[in-house]
Amino acid sequence: MRMYDIILKKRDGGILTKEEIAYVVKGFTDGTIPDYQMSALLMAIYYQHMNYEETLNLTLEMAKSGDILDLSSIQGIKADKHSTGGVGDKTTLVLGPMVAAVGVKTAKMSGRGLGYTGGTIDKLESIPRFSTSLDVHTFMKNVSEIGIAVTGQTGNLAPADKKMYALRDVTATVDNIALISSSIMSKKLASGADIIVLDVKVGSGAFMKTEQKAYELAREMVRIGTGAGRKVSAVLSEMDQPLGLAVGNALEVIEAIDTLKGNGPKDLLELCVALGSHMVVSAGITDRLLEAENLLKQTITNQTAYKKFCAFVKAQGGDVAVLESPQSLIHASIIKNIVSDETGYISHIKSDDIGKAVMLLGGGRQTKDSAIDASVGIVLRKKVGDYIVKGESLGVMFANQEELAQQANQIFKEAFCFSDKKVEKTPLIKGIVI
Amino acid sequence: MRMYDIILKKRDGGILTKEEIAYVVKGFTDGTIPDYQMSALLMAIYYQHMNYEETLNLTLEMAKSGDILDLSSIQGIKADKHSTGGVGDKTTLVLGPMVAAVGVKTAKMSGRGLGYTGGTIDKLESIPRFSTSLDVHTFMKNVSEIGIAVTGQTGNLAPADKKMYALRDVTATVDNIALISSSIMSKKLASGADIIVLDVKVGSGAFMKTEQKAYELAREMVRIGTGAGRKVSAVLSEMDQPLGLAVGNALEVIEAIDTLKGNGPKDLLELCVALGSHMVVSAGITDRLLEAENLLKQTITNQTAYKKFCAFVKAQGGDVAVLESPQSLIHASIIKNIVSDETGYISHIKSDDIGKAVMLLGGGRQTKDSAIDASVGIVLRKKVGDYIVKGESLGVMFANQEELAQQANQIFKEAFCFSDKKVEKTPLIKGIVI
Repeated sequence: MRMYDIILKKRDGGILTKEEIAYVVKGFTDGTIPDYQMSALLMAIYYQHMNYEETLNLTLEMAKSGDILDLSSIQGIKADKHSTGGVGDKTTLVLGPMVAAVGVKTAKMSGRGLGYTGGTIDKLESIPRFSTSLDVHTFMKNVSEIGIAVTGQTGNLAPADKKMYALRDVTATVDNIALISSSIMSKKLASGADIIVLDVKVGSGAFMKTEQKAYELAREMVRIGTGAGRKVSAVLSEMDQPLGLAVGNALEVIEAIDTLKGNGPKDLLELCVALGSHMVVSAGITDRLLEAENLLKQTITNQTAYKKFCAFVKAQGGDVAVLESPQSLIHASIIKNIVSDETGYISHIKSDDIGKAVMLLGGGRQTKDSAIDASVGIVLRKKVGDYIVKGESLGVMFANQEELAQQANQIFKEAFCFSDKKVEKTPLIKGIVI
Repeated sequence: MRMYDIILKKRDGGILTKEEIAYVVKGFTDGTIPDYQMSALLMAIYYQHMNYEETLNLTLEMAKSGDILDLSSIQGIKADKHSTGGVGDKTTLVLGPMVAAVGVKTAKMSGRGLGYTGGTIDKLESIPRFSTSLDVHTFMKNVSEIGIAVTGQTGNLAPADKKMYALRDVTATVDNIALISSSIMSKKLASGADIIVLDVKVGSGAFMKTEQKAYELAREMVRIGTGAGRKVSAVLSEMDQPLGLAVGNALEVIEAIDTLKGNGPKDLLELCVALGSHMVVSAGITDRLLEAENLLKQTITNQTAYKKFCAFVKAQGGDVAVLESPQSLIHASIIKNIVSDETGYISHIKSDDIGKAVMLLGGGRQTKDSAIDASVGIVLRKKVGDYIVKGESLGVMFANQEELAQQANQIFKEAFCFSDKKVEKTPLIKGIVI
């Protein structure tokens, strides 16, 4: 078998066999297939696409290119969630305790990642003394006993995907359904959960700009996961504005705690209930979505979710006292009110620009080795559909450097779009794929 | 400017500017643009193509990526020929002396290359003591005085093309009109000739399988060369069987000498006259093609072409005595008659298979450092349209290893296709592009 022939075959629209795909993934991972051949193949795939069989095989090969997490020592049903990425998305922090409270366990091995804000790990580290480096034994024990644990990625999960994504990122070959879905699903399969729920964001602030594209990606991922023997469902959720109100690491933790206490923004809770209900049904706790939703809502009203969160933080060494007064997590030296220059209905909030402003303040990681400032960010006061008068507050900014604060202030303001006419709020949940 | 954005632009069908193309060629040549980004761009070009402006700019940038040969010290009109490559193609050896005899000079700087047989340099080296390493001064002096000189490539001509071709060769991105024509024309432009005549082969044994494709390539190359200020014409010639009868290094030299003496195969002479006539007209020696053809035919009958060849060989240190008895160039230890297993009209001779057999015997270079056995090869006795009876000779093989000779014998035989019905000979010259 020769890589040249495989490139040629795909270039001319051929269907790659299981053996050819295995050859490519293995050779690329061990370095015998050079990057320049791989990038040529990726560009050919960009144009010629891959069918379901090819995509499934690519996913399976990438999943087994490294360690596959064995969660069998944990009793019960293990679920995992993946979001295609959105600004202000702190669902993991709320969803995990909620489903744990009704008996669905989540063993989350999470990377730090690049992006506008940090990953789940970074966010949790804003809680004093919270440890995200658990040994495997403690990790498994905590999942078993509490129902939730989060640790930094220690294993070598899907290294083929990691290497391939880095190459796609610099060769303009990211934007392809087969490559996106195999990348996401290979990591999820390697993470070992029985149940996988996917949060596919759609809208101007998401990678998938249209519902059609989002549905296409969701269907392909559900089909692949199902083909690999897992229970998979996907929720399409709107990303035409940030999720919730807080964007920034410590600020998002505060909002998550507020939500678990029943005082969070409606959209965040709605999304957690939607995602969680599929986990609960897939876990067999009930076979009716509505009942699952009610069970989850009760975990907020009866505080069982919040108690799970406290137990989870305590088990990982975190300071539980701050959970009672989450405002104590605020450490930014500059706190600024951002006022509107315009009067009208907010028609749209450019999530990417909100994200960029938070990153500029130091809240995100531009390169792998950047340090994150957990204290910076923004809390929105208005969202799409709200009416605002010039001079009223759009939100509050938390910063530590005056110059950056001024730059970010401008970006924040310009992220808001206004309309003279009343703007209808569109539903958060756009669709479900099971 | 970022390579990523250039890949993205071409991926989505954009037209690259002169500045973007200059950035790519410069960066790729000096190594600041990595191979993996270049191969992604090449694959995007494969699908999205390049328009004339882009192709011209790519050609000009590659031409000036290294040395540009300055032939201005040579008096008179300097011409150059390029063939897209065919089995048994020894036109350079015949054409050069012919046009020199009527006053058109050719300064040939030639590589060794890979392929079924060696390049012009390798072929000439089968003449005892012939030197293909001339210093620049001698090279220029010989072209001035004799009208022809051939030397191994000493300058650094179009290094961008060299590097790009090597990458295209392993990433299945060779087959694209813009990339092929810019590759060929960048080297021709750097070689410094005023007149360029292109021999575009078409047919089953050529890179361009159909006349349509060959015309497309010819037109693009003529347009680029003209756009760069040179006089360019292209001849489309058939490659549904080897050119002439001999395939192999020394054997082709013998056939060239025979042709210069007026005893060569008709198709070889016809092609040399066709190619040469365009050089003669472009040089302004006459403005009528027919007269140019007659002038060239006369160089054979009056032996002026042969005398030029002798002077050329002598000037480069070669043994002129062998030219009088060219059969003395035969040194193969095994000479085998290849007999036909079938009776019928020869409908087709698979040139590639004839080439592969000669390469197997040792006549070609499989890798850059392979040694060539100049003595091996085949001389055909029959060509397309000829009638043959089982047991009659198809050709004669010249080899040095019994085992290889047996393998090659089989390949030779199977390269011939037969028909019960009379086969019309098709014209050698398929078309002209000026």
